[in-house]
Amino acid sequence: MKIAVLGGDGFCGWPTSLHLSDQGHEVHIVDNLSRRWIDTELGVQSLTPMDSIQERCRIWKDLTGQALHFHLLDLATEYERLRQWLAEEKPDAIIHFAEQRAAPYSMKTDRHKVYTVNNNVNATHNLLTAMVETGIDAHLVHLGTMGVYGYSSVGAAIPEGYLDVEIENLQGEKKGMEILYPTKPGSVYHMTKSLDQILFQFYAQNDGVRITDLHQGIVWGTHTEQTKRHEQLINRFDYDGDYGTVLNRFLIQAAIDYPLTVHGTGGQTRAFIHLQDTVRCVELALKDAPKAGDRVKIFNQMTETHRVRDLAEMVSKMTGAKIAYLPNPRKEAAENDLIVKNDGFRDLGLSPITLAEGLLDEVVEVSKKYAHRVDRSRVPCVSAWTKDIAGRIETDPEGKRLKSVS
Amino acid sequence: MKIAVLGGDGFCGWPTSLHLSDQGHEVHIVDNLSRRWIDTELGVQSLTPMDSIQERCRIWKDLTGQALHFHLLDLATEYERLRQWLAEEKPDAIIHFAEQRAAPYSMKTDRHKVYTVNNNVNATHNLLTAMVETGIDAHLVHLGTMGVYGYSSVGAAIPEGYLDVEIENLQGEKKGMEILYPTKPGSVYHMTKSLDQILFQFYAQNDGVRITDLHQGIVWGTHTEQTKRHEQLINRFDYDGDYGTVLNRFLIQAAIDYPLTVHGTGGQTRAFIHLQDTVRCVELALKDAPKAGDRVKIFNQMTETHRVRDLAEMVSKMTGAKIAYLPNPRKEAAENDLIVKNDGFRDLGLSPITLAEGLLDEVVEVSKKYAHRVDRSRVPCVSAWTKDIAGRIETDPEGKRLKSVS
Ligand SMILES: NC(=O)c1ccc[n+]([C@@H]2O[C@H](COP(=O)([O-])OP(=O)(O)OC[C@H]3O[C@@H](n4cnc5c(N)ncnc54)[C@H](O)[C@@H]3O)[C@@H](O)[C@H]2O)c1
Ligand SMILES: NC(=O)c1ccc[n+]([C@@H]2O[C@H](COP(=O)([O-])OP(=O)(O)OC[C@H]3O[C@@H](n4cnc5c(N)ncnc54)[C@H](O)[C@@H]3O)[C@@H](O)[C@H]2O)c1
Repeated sequence: MKIAVLGGDGFCGWPTSLHLSDQGHEVHIVDNLSRRWIDTELGVQSLTPMDSIQERCRIWKDLTGQALHFHLLDLATEYERLRQWLAEEKPDAIIHFAEQRAAPYSMKTDRHKVYTVNNNVNATHNLLTAMVETGIDAHLVHLGTMGVYGYSSVGAAIPEGYLDVEIENLQGEKKGMEILYPTKPGSVYHMTKSLDQILFQFYAQNDGVRITDLHQGIVWGTHTEQTKRHEQLINRFDYDGDYGTVLNRFLIQAAIDYPLTVHGTGGQTRAFIHLQDTVRCVELALKDAPKAGDRVKIFNQMTETHRVRDLAEMVSKMTGAKIAYLPNPRKEAAENDLIVKNDGFRDLGLSPITLAEGLLDEVVEVSKKYAHRVDRSRVPCVSAWTKDIAGRIETDPEGKRLKSVS
Repeated sequence: MKIAVLGGDGFCGWPTSLHLSDQGHEVHIVDNLSRRWIDTELGVQSLTPMDSIQERCRIWKDLTGQALHFHLLDLATEYERLRQWLAEEKPDAIIHFAEQRAAPYSMKTDRHKVYTVNNNVNATHNLLTAMVETGIDAHLVHLGTMGVYGYSSVGAAIPEGYLDVEIENLQGEKKGMEILYPTKPGSVYHMTKSLDQILFQFYAQNDGVRITDLHQGIVWGTHTEQTKRHEQLINRFDYDGDYGTVLNRFLIQAAIDYPLTVHGTGGQTRAFIHLQDTVRCVELALKDAPKAGDRVKIFNQMTETHRVRDLAEMVSKMTGAKIAYLPNPRKEAAENDLIVKNDGFRDLGLSPITLAEGLLDEVVEVSKKYAHRVDRSRVPCVSAWTKDIAGRIETDPEGKRLKSVS
C-alpha cells in the first residue's frame, strides 16, 4: 500500500512510519515540523538525541533499502498544497497524527488555546475536504484520545465510541437510538478531539469517507523494534511539564533524583499503552477498514489502566525515588474510576506489552542512559487550567516558585 | 447595559441592535462586513436597498438621539484586537451572530467548506478565549440552529438542548446522566454549530463563562418596529440560492412569476420564527442569564413548524404562483416529522407572530415592492451536497442548465 503518515516526525508517527515501511509499504511522511519549533519555543529538547527528519529518513534508506519520503507541509494553513499533494500521490491509506497534542500546552495562555484549536480543527477538516474534493478513496485512520470523555462518568465501562440510548417518541414509545458516546473534554486539547469526532461523523455520512478513529490511551515507552536498529533512528522522548506524559515524567524524575510529582491525590485513573502496541494497533486498524457509507469505526486503543499514585509507587519501588504530592494544576475530579472496553483490538489479535514487563527496560535503557541531558528547570508543570488555580499553585517540589515559561 | 452585537450588520444582527438601542442599552456593533463581501463574490444583492452600516448608524442617531457604535473587526483572524477591544469596552452582554450562516454556501466548493469551518470555529473560540483572558463577566448569547439535530430523528420531540439517558454502571445498575442532545448536522454550516456547542460546554465548565445558546429556526420576515421607522434603516433580505431562506425565496419567486422551487418531495419539516420574535427572544434571553458555573442554557427559538410543500402551497394560494418540484441538491431525508419544545420562551412570555397573520404583509410590503431589483439568474440553488448529486441536478425550472456560479 501507499501510506501517508501525517505528523510522521512525531513521537507516535515516526515509529509508525518505520513499522509500516518495514512491512514493505510505501510510506510518505507529511509534517510541518511544528513540534520541533515548539521545543524551541519552550526551550526544551527530547531526552533522546534526535536527528533531523531528513537525516533519519536517509539512515533508514541506507539500512533497509526502503525509501521513506518526507514532505514539509502544514495541513492547517496550506489547504491548496495539501489537496494537490493528495491528488498527485493518491495514497491508499492516511494515518493522521498531525495535531498539537499536549493538554498542558493547550492551556498555557490564550495564545496557546487559540493556536491549538485553529491548528487541530483546520488540519483535520482540511484533510477531510481535500479527500472529498480529490475523490481519492483512502482509508483515514486518526489518532483520538480516551480523554474526550472527561474521566468523571457514572462509573460505567467506556464502550468503543457508541452508546445505545432510548428516546421516547411522540406516541410515548421507547425507541432505541445509537449515538456517539457523549464527550466532556477537560482541556482545550481534548476538546479539539471531541470536535474532530463531529467532523468525522459528518464526512462519513455525507461523503462516504472511510474513517477509523483510534481513541488512544497515554503512550509510554520509547523504542520499537525498528527504532532500535540504529542509534540515529531513536525516537523522541518528552519529559518536560508540557509534553511529557505522566509515566515518562516519573521515569525521568527518578533518574535525576527529582521527587515524582503527583498532582492532587494521584487518584486519577488513566489508560495506557506501550508505543510498540500503538504501531501494531495502527497496522491492525489498516487491515480492518470500514466500507464507504459505514459509520466511523472507533477503537479504544489502550491496554491497561492505572491510578497515577500507583504508577508513582511502582516507579518509586523500582528506583528508590521519593514521591511529592503537589496541588493539581488541572481542573478535574480528584479521584475517578476508569473501565475501558478494548475488545476491538483484542479480537484482532493484539497481545499487549504490560507495564510490569516493560518498565524496567525503560528505566535502564532510556532514562538512566540519557539522564545527563535533562534540564531540571523544565520538569515542573506550569500550565494551570484556570486563573483561579494559577493563583494557588506556587512552588515546585524543589521549593522554587513556578512561573509560566512563556 | 452595554451590549456588544457581533455580526450586527447582518440580517438578524441589525434589527437586534436597533431593538436593544431602542430600549436604552448602549449598543456596540462588531462586524467584519464579510457578508457584504460575499454578496460581491456571488454577484447578488439584498432585495431591499441596504445602506452602509456607517450610514445606517448615523441615521439611527439622527432619528433617536441614541448612538450606535460600529467597530470593524474580524473575530476569526484578529484575536489580539478582539481581546483588546473587550478589555477596553467591558460589555455586560455579548450577542454573537457573527458566523457564515448559509448551508448551501458552506457546501458550494471545497474552498467554501474550508472558509466556513475556519471562520465559524475560530470566531466562536477566539471570543470565548478572549472573554476568559480579559476576565470580563459578560453574558454570552449565541445564535445556534435547530438544524444541528439533522431532521431524521426517531420522531421524538426535540428538547431544549439536553437529554436524560440511562447508563449501566459497573455494578449493573442503571444510572441517569444528562447529556447534550446528540447532534447529526447535515451540512458543513450546521456542523460548525455542533462544534460551537462543544466549545460552549467546555468554557462554561472550565471557566464559568455564562452562556445562552439559542437554537433558532428559520427566520422569515423583513421588518421590525425599528427598521420601519426610516427607509434607510431597512433590513437585508436575501433571496438568492445560497442565502435566501426557504420562505423568503418562495415570496420572491411568487413576486417575479418564477415557479416556487420545492426540492424533492417538499416533505422536509422545518421550524420557523418571525424576525420580530427573534429580536424579542434575544431580549428575553438577556434578562434570564445563567449564573457562573451553570451549564449552558439552551432555548429552542422557534414558534411553528411546517412542511416545505405546505409553505409553497400557502404562498401559491395567496399569489397564484406555480410550484415546481425539483431534484433535491441536499443529502437529507425526503420526509421528516419535527416536533420542537419551546417552553423556555413561552414561559418567559413570548407571544409569537404566526405565518398566517404575517405572510400577506411580506407579500405586499416587501416582495412586490422590491421585485424589480431581483436577478432571476440568482434564484436557483446551485450548491449540491455531494459530487454524486451534483452530477444528477441539471436544470432549473426555467429549463436552463444550472452551473455553479463560482
Ligand atoms: N503521545 C500520547 O500519549 C498520545 C495519547 C493519545 C493520543 N495521541 C495522539 O496521537 C497523535 C500523535 O501524538 P504524538 O505524541 O506523536 O505527538 P507529537 O507532537 O510528537 O507529533 C505530532 C506531529 O504532528 C505534526 N503536526 C502538528 N500539526 C501539524 C500540521 N498542522 N501540519 C503538519 N504536521 C503537523 C508535528 O510537527 C509533530 O511532528 C496526536 O494526534 C495525539 O493527540 C497521543
Ligand atoms: N437567518 C436565519 O434564518 C437563521 C436561522 C438560524 C440561525 N441563524 C443564526 O443567526 C446568526 C445571524 O444570522 P443572519 O441571518 O443574521 O446572518 P448574516 O450573514 O446576515 O449575518 C452575520 C453577520 O456576521 C458577520 N460576520 C461573519 N463572520 C464574521 C467574523 N469572522 N467577524 C466579524 N463578523 C463576522 C457578517 O459580516 C454578517 O454581517 C448566524 O449565526 C446564523 O447561523 C440564522
